[in-house]
Amino acid sequence: MDILPPNVTALIEEFAKLPSIGPKTAERLVFHLLRSGGEDGLGTAALKLKEGLGYCELCQNFSTTPICMLCSNSQRDDTVWAVVSQPLDVVAVEKTGLFRGRYHVLHGVISPVDGIGPDELKLAELFARLEENPPTEIILATNPNLEGETTALFIAKKLEPYGIKVTRLAHGLPIGGDLEYADQMTLGRAIDNRREF
Amino acid sequence: MDILPPNVTALIEEFAKLPSIGPKTAERLVFHLLRSGGEDGLGTAALKLKEGLGYCELCQNFSTTPICMLCSNSQRDDTVWAVVSQPLDVVAVEKTGLFRGRYHVLHGVISPVDGIGPDELKLAELFARLEENPPTEIILATNPNLEGETTALFIAKKLEPYGIKVTRLAHGLPIGGDLEYADQMTLGRAIDNRREF
Repeated sequence: MDILPPNVTALIEEFAKLPSIGPKTAERLVFHLLRSGGEDGLGTAALKLKEGLGYCELCQNFSTTPICMLCSNSQRDDTVWAVVSQPLDVVAVEKTGLFRGRYHVLHGVISPVDGIGPDELKLAELFARLEENPPTEIILATNPNLEGETTALFIAKKLEPYGIKVTRLAHGLPIGGDLEYADQMTLGRAIDNRREF
Repeated sequence: MDILPPNVTALIEEFAKLPSIGPKTAERLVFHLLRSGGEDGLGTAALKLKEGLGYCELCQNFSTTPICMLCSNSQRDDTVWAVVSQPLDVVAVEKTGLFRGRYHVLHGVISPVDGIGPDELKLAELFARLEENPPTEIILATNPNLEGETTALFIAKKLEPYGIKVTRLAHGLPIGGDLEYADQMTLGRAIDNRREF
């Protein structure tokens, strides 16, 4: 569509690559920026997004320091860990204010359809941490859907020899739903009512 | 929410400033970029968005040249102009392939509630063009809603002394709808069935 200047088309195409943004929405976003400004802030923030960003050596969450803020916080409870599939889930659980333990971020779930097996997840790092300083309880806080349950089951089996209490979040969460979309009260109750695996 | 690194939060905030993107969607977009990459392309495109971009001296659409591609195209019909409220509407009409005339972009509509009067629109530029090289017909292709009708009525009154045929797009468009969201067939039929103002 060469009606538009190439720089305008270029940004529309970049927006349209993002999930849930179709070509029409991408056009609207770009013309909003053309009208109202803000493209410099957006552009600079996008280019800086991964500046100095790596993985925390312990929980594998994104971090700008070798050990992330949550892992280096001495006020947290070392005896309970929550294993989540992605960094956004840490944000969701933290927002409830009801969990004071440690995290481990898998960066994915087992999904044979997508060709993702256990080796693609940060599981070696999880078990390395267990050797060092094991907790008394691990909450397998993966999503309550097929991939999440499969992943939890796989990890639960692997954890059996360690004699650690393994729990799942209570099914206050809607089945088939996404952890990151849960409202804070629902997710909070799911943490309180977590059940033994 | 200081769980997230500041660079991550910064980009979430930039996304959340955009229309139709709430804080949760903004989070998802940023974590998609963290997972799948693409932030460099997006960032660079955003920073370059307005590079060399100005208004076409004739139709007032965005252009990287003093006269835009459509205005400098000698294959277009000089005798019919379409007056639209925003650049996206030019894109929408062009996609129908049924209009071969010229455009004029108002960059807004009359909206007393928002404090936008005729002087905020590119109307002086429209009437300056009329002095130079008037068409035989002007299609007032503003949206079929209150502001669009008001704007069309205002311009139609101003055009009366010129003896130019003034038309509106046919009401194939849903009343209260947005021109840029119309599908191509509906918008195409609306162009074919345009009626005298």
